[in-house]
Amino acid sequence: MESSNSEAIYLHHGSGGEHMTQLLNDVILKILKNDILDVRHDGAFINLQGNLAFSTDSYVISPIFFKGGNIGELAVNGTVNDLSMCGAIPKYLSLSLIIEEGFSLDEFTQIIKSIKSAADKAGVFIVTGDTKVVERGKGDKIYINTSGIGIIHEKADIKIRNILENDAILVNGAIASHGMAIMSEREGLQFESDILSDTTNLNEIVLELIEKHGNKIHFLRDATRGGLASVLHEIVTESNFGMNLLDENINVENQVRSACELLGLDPLYVANEGIFVCIVDADIKDEVLAILQKTNPNASCIGFVTQDHPSKIIVESAFGGKRVLSPLIGEQLPRIC
Amino acid sequence: MESSNSEAIYLHHGSGGEHMTQLLNDVILKILKNDILDVRHDGAFINLQGNLAFSTDSYVISPIFFKGGNIGELAVNGTVNDLSMCGAIPKYLSLSLIIEEGFSLDEFTQIIKSIKSAADKAGVFIVTGDTKVVERGKGDKIYINTSGIGIIHEKADIKIRNILENDAILVNGAIASHGMAIMSEREGLQFESDILSDTTNLNEIVLELIEKHGNKIHFLRDATRGGLASVLHEIVTESNFGMNLLDENINVENQVRSACELLGLDPLYVANEGIFVCIVDADIKDEVLAILQKTNPNASCIGFVTQDHPSKIIVESAFGGKRVLSPLIGEQLPRIC
Repeated sequence: MESSNSEAIYLHHGSGGEHMTQLLNDVILKILKNDILDVRHDGAFINLQGNLAFSTDSYVISPIFFKGGNIGELAVNGTVNDLSMCGAIPKYLSLSLIIEEGFSLDEFTQIIKSIKSAADKAGVFIVTGDTKVVERGKGDKIYINTSGIGIIHEKADIKIRNILENDAILVNGAIASHGMAIMSEREGLQFESDILSDTTNLNEIVLELIEKHGNKIHFLRDATRGGLASVLHEIVTESNFGMNLLDENINVENQVRSACELLGLDPLYVANEGIFVCIVDADIKDEVLAILQKTNPNASCIGFVTQDHPSKIIVESAFGGKRVLSPLIGEQLPRIC
Repeated sequence: MESSNSEAIYLHHGSGGEHMTQLLNDVILKILKNDILDVRHDGAFINLQGNLAFSTDSYVISPIFFKGGNIGELAVNGTVNDLSMCGAIPKYLSLSLIIEEGFSLDEFTQIIKSIKSAADKAGVFIVTGDTKVVERGKGDKIYINTSGIGIIHEKADIKIRNILENDAILVNGAIASHGMAIMSEREGLQFESDILSDTTNLNEIVLELIEKHGNKIHFLRDATRGGLASVLHEIVTESNFGMNLLDENINVENQVRSACELLGLDPLYVANEGIFVCIVDADIKDEVLAILQKTNPNASCIGFVTQDHPSKIIVESAFGGKRVLSPLIGEQLPRIC
């Protein structure tokens, strides 16, 4: 049997035999260790009561290491955030790995360690998992699926149908950083300082919003693939309301804006990872903004919900010009998450 | 925008924009339609009470269509079965797709339809999902992750530490059919009649076992990757018991055995999908066998648990010869599930 110092992962590590057991024991289960995972059954035994949220995402980002994070922490934060957007307190995650034959064991180990730190930071446990290995040229280093379960907060009532006319639309920070961190990496662009991915867990800030404001928080959605414009479009399409946005209130860091210009991209369509849209009762707009700004001074109120032009988003520029924000057509940035 | 009759899936179908919405609306959500999925939030809202089981598996089988099934129904049955092996009644599944650019929309639709039928047959709902598209040569048509949640049956107590000396070891049918169905397909082998995959949902039969025999059902595990020998090895390693098996009681269909001989494979190490190991109190052996045989006449009691040789499996031949069953080393059949 090969020692655990072998430098790469091979097909036999996905066979269900001794090599797989070794990879599990020496790396995966060793790093992710917790009481539930250690039972090592076909599934995890967990105890949860009440209304739950259940979410899944596969992460196929390329490159897998980037400034500000890697695919491992992205896979934890992404699913933690999807649960948070449901008004849930994330509890348990599953972890399923599709590894390309030849992938570096060192990089693999580094990713599993990031998964562990991200899970610890978000207060969730990886309780069940799966490992598959595919031949060279049938994958790309590593793809990760996480699915997650959380308990809906008793004060939460996050539903598209709860959105009302005049609701305030807030965003928790400057947009497009994640997408441009990845694009800079791919294109080998250099800036004065690094553009960092915004990947982070949002469960703490969402918990604070819900504990303080309960069902006045009408809707939440993280602005990942397709960027802020795409999730706003999903919301207007599903709710049949329109939105009026103020362009100058949508924050983009200067060097992110420069990078977008250089690559001909509109930051509104560039993916984020730690950015979410928060649609709240207009009464609590300032208090919500204050909570968001404690964590990120770039948080802002970007506009309001309207019945005037259903399913349409109108953006007003600083000079008073108005344009209709169109939905994303085609593929702007493949494999961004 | 392209019409839904376009013949393939492209990168833009994974972009988070209009094309993705179209693929979701015209195929995925249309076929899988149910009240929970239709909410279309970042996660599903579900209500469950009690002790739960949570499981995940990624399916990377090649070819994706084979005699007796396809990757879609495999992905449903596999996770349904993992939950069943925990003594749980499977309830909700997530579905996450990693599609290779250029994959046929017709085949994709066929797979989603199979997922729907398999879910209906097993009585589970697909409640949340994700779709990613990767470039040509970075995947292989389609990889599917399903994660699942089930409610542990109140009479169930399936734990490795519940295994006792003299417990009976039963298997619910002839082994190695799934693996040899896939290998025949890959190698273009022809037999008198087709070798069919044994993929099926096991939740109904497990439910019957648990309702009738409760905690006398000590342990369950499905004999997938690595075959029967590998799961028995996992069990003896984790339990520190040994096993005595009778070779002649381990059923293999004739043409499956011929195919194994032709390819130099030992059926004990060949993957199954609808075959599980059932370790039960010796008192109820005959009743359990009768339940298993109602569905499959090839079900059998293959041996007993012993303390005589911890972590070791001894197989006795029809002529009284004894051999130690070794664990699987290396990769026998890559991408079999």
